[in-house]
Amino acid sequence: MTRPPDDLLERWNACGYYRTTNMRVLEAGADGSRFALTVTPELLQAYGTAHGGVLAGLIDAAMGLAILARQPPEEGCATIEMKLNFTAPAPPGELSARGWVVTEGRRLFVAAAEARDARDRVVAVGQGTFQRFQAAGA
Amino acid sequence: MTRPPDDLLERWNACGYYRTTNMRVLEAGADGSRFALTVTPELLQAYGTAHGGVLAGLIDAAMGLAILARQPPEEGCATIEMKLNFTAPAPPGELSARGWVVTEGRRLFVAAAEARDARDRVVAVGQGTFQRFQAAGA
Amino acid sequence: MTRPPDDLLERWNACGYYRTTNMRVLEAGADGSRFALTVTPELLQAYGTAHGGVLAGLIDAAMGLAILARQPPEEGCATIEMKLNFTAPAPPGELSARGWVVTEGRRLFVAAAEARDARDRVVAVGQGTFQRFQAAGA
Amino acid sequence: MTRPPDDLLERWNACGYYRTTNMRVLEAGADGSRFALTVTPELLQAYGTAHGGVLAGLIDAAMGLAILARQPPEEGCATIEMKLNFTAPAPPGELSARGWVVTEGRRLFVAAAEARDARDRVVAVGQGTFQRFQAAGA
Repeated sequence: MTRPPDDLLERWNACGYYRTTNMRVLEAGADGSRFALTVTPELLQAYGTAHGGVLAGLIDAAMGLAILARQPPEEGCATIEMKLNFTAPAPPGELSARGWVVTEGRRLFVAAAEARDARDRVVAVGQGTFQRFQAAGA
Repeated sequence: MTRPPDDLLERWNACGYYRTTNMRVLEAGADGSRFALTVTPELLQAYGTAHGGVLAGLIDAAMGLAILARQPPEEGCATIEMKLNFTAPAPPGELSARGWVVTEGRRLFVAAAEARDARDRVVAVGQGTFQRFQAAGA
Repeated sequence: MTRPPDDLLERWNACGYYRTTNMRVLEAGADGSRFALTVTPELLQAYGTAHGGVLAGLIDAAMGLAILARQPPEEGCATIEMKLNFTAPAPPGELSARGWVVTEGRRLFVAAAEARDARDRVVAVGQGTFQRFQAAGA
Repeated sequence: MTRPPDDLLERWNACGYYRTTNMRVLEAGADGSRFALTVTPELLQAYGTAHGGVLAGLIDAAMGLAILARQPPEEGCATIEMKLNFTAPAPPGELSARGWVVTEGRRLFVAAAEARDARDRVVAVGQGTFQRFQAAGA
């Protein structure tokens, strides 16, 4: 049984990092995840566009929730590694992202994600490896 | 002429993202960069450890400042892509990081970085590619 | 004007590396590239499956030809970096691969590729960054 | 007990892929691995330098043997993923490489490697993730 999507979304949207970076998971299901993030001045580097960490966090999260949506409620997943291209600067404003599962193994998942700016230009694309684990009290 | 290190450090430590993630560049010179970051509840994911985006931002910054310290004041650098491994969970507390330049070309730099927790355990290691640019008004 | 696809395919299929690894580009056009590769004993590592270098070469080539098919004949592209997941062992037999362009910039391309075994199982997926150049006498 | 290094080196130097790409592991021990590879016309792409697959295979192997040298004889390791930068073209001639372990966990290793040409210029650098396994009859 996969986990009730509403609980999953609420739990993650409530965590510190999501709130700090104005990031929300909008949807997570069999087809992958959808995210939104608002780039505010608090998230900029010295050149006036979103710091790489903001986009990396968005790509990581979009991959992670696409995986979690497929796992039973008692399981979690941890990012082992990820790789991402920054394809355009992301100025203040709205970003959207989607993540999807590429392969699912017994222990490992490979997922991918992309983020776009308000004009639908791709600002980041990534691919990562995730490890399944049993989440205590998940 | 490389840029005056104090200006460089002040400029970056003042930017929104560094402040939001409690990240400080302590040193940036010919030998690379040194960073500190305090993991607070605002930076945690739902499992209670630092979100991948926080570590990714730290690795990205440590690589970027190691490069900037070698560039003349009128130049900047942009992260084209990076890859990072998360080698251990990073619970609330202090992290340190260092970044260094691997190769320097006419247009591109390759850099690497690692982050450690308060007990000196490696929590993330990365490698990235950066593009040189002329920074208007830098 | 993009280059005549037949010349492109012939040129690459004739090069040493393609022949050494039994790799053929079957198609390269606006929609991407398609490749085939036969894993023979000469391409195995000590555990009896294709060495990572074979799959990496296939992924690199599938991305590269997807890009070249979009470039005018006087241009070439060079792989700056790539990242790949090995998702299943590739035993002796036939592999297929496809590559596609993710983003195209003035100087850089980002591309992706995947390789599958004879039973259509994904054995490798990758993402890479390529630099445009003017090919002397291309 | 770690495995007898001579057996390890002989076993890998005898495998098909190593012979096909003129690759030899010279040393593998607690401090990492050392490799040599001769770039011949059979390993070139259409521009006259070593194909990315050749360098990827060398980086993968240098990381893998650095890990195997630390494992007991009944264990093996498999590359889960890797990332590599191509920092300079590698024309026909001799290459050298070294690999080292970055972190060792219960299930996973992170390793890194670099390859240099005959003039000691870095041509490729990489970072990868490897999974421990029990090797039947190893």
